[in-house]
Amino acid sequence: MKSDIEISQTTKMDPIFEVAQKLDINADSLEQYGNYKAKVSVPLDPQNVKSKLVLVTSINPTSAGEGKTTVSVGLGDALSLLGQRIALALREPSLGPVMGLKGGATGGGYSQVVPMEDINLHFTGDFHAITEAHDTLAALVDNHIQHGNQLNIDPRQIVWKRVLDVNDRELRQTVIGLGGKTSGVPRQDGFDITVASEIMAILCLASDLEDLKRRISKIIIGYTYDGEVVTVADLKVQGALTLLLKDAIKPNLVQTLEHTPAFIHGGPFANIAHGCNSILATQAGLTTADYTVTEAGFGSDLGGEKFMDIASPAIGKRPDVVVVVATIRALKLNGGQDAKELKHEDLEALKAGVVNLKRHVQNMQQFGQPVVVGINKFATDSDAEVNFLHQYVADELHVAIAEVDCFSEGGKGAVDLANLVIENSETAFVSQNIYDADDSLVEKLTKVTQKVYGGKNVELTAAAKKQLKQIEKLGYAHLPVCMAKTQYSFSDDPKLLGAPSGFIITVRELQIKAGAGFIVAITGNILTMPGLPSHPAALDMDISADGTITGLF
Amino acid sequence: MKSDIEISQTTKMDPIFEVAQKLDINADSLEQYGNYKAKVSVPLDPQNVKSKLVLVTSINPTSAGEGKTTVSVGLGDALSLLGQRIALALREPSLGPVMGLKGGATGGGYSQVVPMEDINLHFTGDFHAITEAHDTLAALVDNHIQHGNQLNIDPRQIVWKRVLDVNDRELRQTVIGLGGKTSGVPRQDGFDITVASEIMAILCLASDLEDLKRRISKIIIGYTYDGEVVTVADLKVQGALTLLLKDAIKPNLVQTLEHTPAFIHGGPFANIAHGCNSILATQAGLTTADYTVTEAGFGSDLGGEKFMDIASPAIGKRPDVVVVVATIRALKLNGGQDAKELKHEDLEALKAGVVNLKRHVQNMQQFGQPVVVGINKFATDSDAEVNFLHQYVADELHVAIAEVDCFSEGGKGAVDLANLVIENSETAFVSQNIYDADDSLVEKLTKVTQKVYGGKNVELTAAAKKQLKQIEKLGYAHLPVCMAKTQYSFSDDPKLLGAPSGFIITVRELQIKAGAGFIVAITGNILTMPGLPSHPAALDMDISADGTITGLF
Repeated sequence: MKSDIEISQTTKMDPIFEVAQKLDINADSLEQYGNYKAKVSVPLDPQNVKSKLVLVTSINPTSAGEGKTTVSVGLGDALSLLGQRIALALREPSLGPVMGLKGGATGGGYSQVVPMEDINLHFTGDFHAITEAHDTLAALVDNHIQHGNQLNIDPRQIVWKRVLDVNDRELRQTVIGLGGKTSGVPRQDGFDITVASEIMAILCLASDLEDLKRRISKIIIGYTYDGEVVTVADLKVQGALTLLLKDAIKPNLVQTLEHTPAFIHGGPFANIAHGCNSILATQAGLTTADYTVTEAGFGSDLGGEKFMDIASPAIGKRPDVVVVVATIRALKLNGGQDAKELKHEDLEALKAGVVNLKRHVQNMQQFGQPVVVGINKFATDSDAEVNFLHQYVADELHVAIAEVDCFSEGGKGAVDLANLVIENSETAFVSQNIYDADDSLVEKLTKVTQKVYGGKNVELTAAAKKQLKQIEKLGYAHLPVCMAKTQYSFSDDPKLLGAPSGFIITVRELQIKAGAGFIVAITGNILTMPGLPSHPAALDMDISADGTITGLF
Repeated sequence: MKSDIEISQTTKMDPIFEVAQKLDINADSLEQYGNYKAKVSVPLDPQNVKSKLVLVTSINPTSAGEGKTTVSVGLGDALSLLGQRIALALREPSLGPVMGLKGGATGGGYSQVVPMEDINLHFTGDFHAITEAHDTLAALVDNHIQHGNQLNIDPRQIVWKRVLDVNDRELRQTVIGLGGKTSGVPRQDGFDITVASEIMAILCLASDLEDLKRRISKIIIGYTYDGEVVTVADLKVQGALTLLLKDAIKPNLVQTLEHTPAFIHGGPFANIAHGCNSILATQAGLTTADYTVTEAGFGSDLGGEKFMDIASPAIGKRPDVVVVVATIRALKLNGGQDAKELKHEDLEALKAGVVNLKRHVQNMQQFGQPVVVGINKFATDSDAEVNFLHQYVADELHVAIAEVDCFSEGGKGAVDLANLVIENSETAFVSQNIYDADDSLVEKLTKVTQKVYGGKNVELTAAAKKQLKQIEKLGYAHLPVCMAKTQYSFSDDPKLLGAPSGFIITVRELQIKAGAGFIVAITGNILTMPGLPSHPAALDMDISADGTITGLF
């Protein structure tokens, strides 16, 4: 079989204005970036929602991921084959991990969004604009201190770090401002990856340019020597930062290999941020399509929960149906099989691992929506394994299940799942919440831990307790929580697989994201700046004199 | 009069494919970025040069600049008015200074390239791609050390710093890699501004994708414990870095307010780098226009000299005529008038300051090309001042002079200069060099100091002498030099105005830029990472809900 990049580079794309026409978006509303990418600049009316919303989430993954994007793309193409008008709403890939282990994030095989070589690299520059806005703010903060510090900012209490869209562990903890009086004030600092920037979250949650500016104004950059918050509004630079994001806020339109329209916009990770594409992209789908298929990052414990508790209120709508993607490989990993052995049949490991799927399905059912399971097939899945899984889901979980092979077959390979999605999206449901808006912050943390993770309780370190007091004192304790947690386990220990219980979630840091409108709780050893592996993907990438690309996947 | 951004936002632009048609570039060769920006992807044949080349340089400027870009744009429009087919070839603005003191770099008044609000912000993402490639390389270097350091890289001798397109003095000198074993190796480091990146220079000098990759391969990132160079080729990541620049290497096409085609591409500063737009942009003009007007940064001592000694050999052509731009304001500053008083007549200061213009004109004449002077007029110039200057240039410098008022009048205001340019570009000349390729490095530094700066001699600090020995030992001593020097004076002391002599240029650091193909000599206190002023331009910028922009200039 051809590589992803070979398939992408040899598939004939439709001109993007033709793709837009499928959603009745005319050429005047497009700003083309070449012939196959465009920003959609038409104002979209969120009141005019006519589309069903399909949320794709998954079980706890292997380090290679579960092919959730591949299934989302295939599902979109399959729904198109069934005569529906479809919009995908997906996140943009981050360049840092593309150069590392994970590769791109545009699906795979015959189920991709294209041009994958552009989407996986700089695309339309949204992430770079966010990096620039974020780091411009950081420079303005230190510059304010350098020129007299009228706001009385305490350099020891600056919480606005810098960002780069690079996996660069070397920048996690730094000392800056060395070199004497003309080169700033020496202080501790560090870099996060761009996807962890609060500006990324804000861009994904903002309803328009004005809301974007209002949210940016509220960002807390640090504290005065007297413990008062210092915001972007105090620095008076919300205008400049919003200006830097004037194009980034517009959703991008591309297409699948089968020419289904795909809005790809925004890209917070779900383990260190809220993990959902922009609400503007989702709303673009909701106001133009019959079905909008969107994906939240990692499992139901991360992107799934955050979609319900953070993104949905901003979109103004819950999903009509939820797809939980699983692979037999990952279920066996969760059941104890060695990661290197996953291609070999192991019914015992599968039987032990299906509890992971069960908890993810029940997690999503807690929110009230109908749930279906999609099995992303691998050639190494044995018939016995597949049969067992079907039986288990039918007998124990009582939800519909379909096998998907869109990696090899494109949309055709996801028609069974598409039919289940259509059928289940007609089911009436009553939305439920797992916590109430006026629960205390600790109650919210506890309910997520107990109801979604299946843990015993949550504990705050001494440092986090101190931060909690400050959050309460400053009046931000009413915000929802956004957990930063490993994607490999329901717990905060990446090695605790399956469906563990009795564990404690340790919150070691609470961060106020006043512009995004949530409190980030950092658990376990999760890092907001990843590193590169010993053999980074970058080493295998190349472009020839005639523009042929190799090594992107 | 309207502000620059008001003029830009209220002028009706032509669709970019119509602008391209003026140069017989058809729509198939364009990748549009919206309706008014495009990347030109047609292969250009540098052998097929039919255009005259006009180089615009200037005297030593005030801190506000001399309006060199404004004059270049106006000259292009004026030549268009005279029935010539014109291409401008200019540099892209850097975002760091846009947020600081200087504002944008797209001309001013009725002599601008548009859409200025896009060109001055992220434009087509070229600088962000360079930042990403540069910092990805930095991360790969530290990652190599983290994972066993097979190449034996000495962390104390890494010369590849990181970059951001932000004026951030706080990042000039840093310590990175703190936080223990999993977060890298602690070491000293620092950030430059993106325009100072060797990758910026390489992008501007590369003849095609293959040459780009070859140059990137040669970049020296540091040294082994045994003192051997470590290059990008040793790390095997030239393919990935070239891939990250696959779009950035293509020249961008925009238009002036009067719809003259303008290639805007690449943007090294002339005080800390080589200061010329990409040779691909200049060649795009040379193969499609009658006249190609290009600008080199700052005065003849910086961009002017570097255009001749670094860019011209890569372009394969010297200019046919050189325009030296001067303002009466800057000449008076050079003659001793206080910077705050420049709007008041001061004939004595002007008489004392014209020696600055004289040396810049003679500098350019040394290279053999015809030179004309363009006076960029200000409303505060008195008749007596203007008359004196005309007389002086005619009697003492024996070169043609024209007044220019394209800021208020657009191309119409530069027709006199355009006529002089046409006339002088027909003059036969013999190109001269100020140093020979096989001069030693010290001879090259000395000849630039004596012949171009008018100084007595060059001195190397002990550290620079040590670097010189290393450069000779490693076999890079044959490369041309690229001086990093203040733009305010011929000397390395920004306070020494006029036409000083007898001074010593102190070189405190020599850097091998093996990919760019030159040795950077850092003189005086020049910084490769600027800071922001006490009232950054960012504080006055805004964008309203309907997209109206204010505060960009």
